[in-house]
Amino acid sequence: MDLAVTDRTRLRRKKERGHFDWATVSAILDEGFVCHLGFVDDGGPVVIPTAYGRIDRDLYVHGASANHALRTTASGMEACVTVTLADGIVLARSAFHHSMNYRSVVLFGRATKVEDVDEKRRAMLAIVDHVVPGRSTDTRGPTEEELRATLVLRLPIVEASAKVRTGGPIEEPEDLSLPIWGGEIPLTLNAGQPVADGQGDTRVPAPAYAAAYRRPVR
Amino acid sequence: MDLAVTDRTRLRRKKERGHFDWATVSAILDEGFVCHLGFVDDGGPVVIPTAYGRIDRDLYVHGASANHALRTTASGMEACVTVTLADGIVLARSAFHHSMNYRSVVLFGRATKVEDVDEKRRAMLAIVDHVVPGRSTDTRGPTEEELRATLVLRLPIVEASAKVRTGGPIEEPEDLSLPIWGGEIPLTLNAGQPVADGQGDTRVPAPAYAAAYRRPVR
Repeated sequence: MDLAVTDRTRLRRKKERGHFDWATVSAILDEGFVCHLGFVDDGGPVVIPTAYGRIDRDLYVHGASANHALRTTASGMEACVTVTLADGIVLARSAFHHSMNYRSVVLFGRATKVEDVDEKRRAMLAIVDHVVPGRSTDTRGPTEEELRATLVLRLPIVEASAKVRTGGPIEEPEDLSLPIWGGEIPLTLNAGQPVADGQGDTRVPAPAYAAAYRRPVR
Repeated sequence: MDLAVTDRTRLRRKKERGHFDWATVSAILDEGFVCHLGFVDDGGPVVIPTAYGRIDRDLYVHGASANHALRTTASGMEACVTVTLADGIVLARSAFHHSMNYRSVVLFGRATKVEDVDEKRRAMLAIVDHVVPGRSTDTRGPTEEELRATLVLRLPIVEASAKVRTGGPIEEPEDLSLPIWGGEIPLTLNAGQPVADGQGDTRVPAPAYAAAYRRPVR
């Protein structure tokens, strides 16, 4: 089931860049792992970066129970979660036509504080596994106390849209005679070799998901 | 001159991660090139990714004159601009203590629509040079028509704060006896070899700032 277009998610301009199919939206959400959570606090906008996870059609974010941003977002007001993947820088012959290649998802909705302890535990592990696929089964799971100390929010992935730009620069025909290079600088996220913290049993080798870390790409 | 702490930029928790000195804030703004612009539209939050530039203590964003997000932001309401650099993923022995190393800046203020044509031109070129240092002098500058077609917003970098996390996981002492690897996966932005668009004079070589693209790091 794909996503319904609403007044908030409809693209007003460059409609060809808009995508409302679940495959496109979920692939961007799965490749990213930092979202920018927007909420309204005291009448003004606040945008904070945070990790997130996904279980089916729900997006989860979490933080300390005392976290002001999450507490405000949990109060039943509208939230906006945006995930952006920067794929490349587009160099045109003119300053005006410079651009970026990117994939982004903008998700609107009301976040709910997760009260159920089992869902809370599943969400915490889903966030760990979203950021480092395969990690959660290697870790010591959350205690009752840690679950109490954590605020988890659920946001249904219903009112969402993706925006995608690919390709080279759009040029004015007359600019093509200028002796200026045009094209794209591709960008990727690079994971370096894992650095052990030197605590505990230092003979434990870095697991494969850390030594060969990469984001899921569909 | 460093930045005054306000109710909005004061850190409520983990205060040791907060930075209000100009050197830290400006270094993060200069290394990043995609910001997440938050504004309130019809009572709810909206967060969109966009490129930006900086001239002294002003941050500039731009878009088409018809851009709804920028027009809304230009209407004199509060805006929030957040820039996030993801530096690493922190793997703890427990799911609970997983974390991210990052540097972020959150900037609050009212954006002003730039009406002065010279400032508009300078801002457009500053954004080009912010994303690709050194590029603007190689490009065909904006025409009067292109300047009219572009909406440029200025946001003073006054009410801003940086947040920085570095280092390995914080562990519960009893978790250190577990046979679980702990440490950091470092993340960097990687620029690949530039891809020419195949238009115009294809003998023009990729300039050095594209062939050896990297973000300014202080």
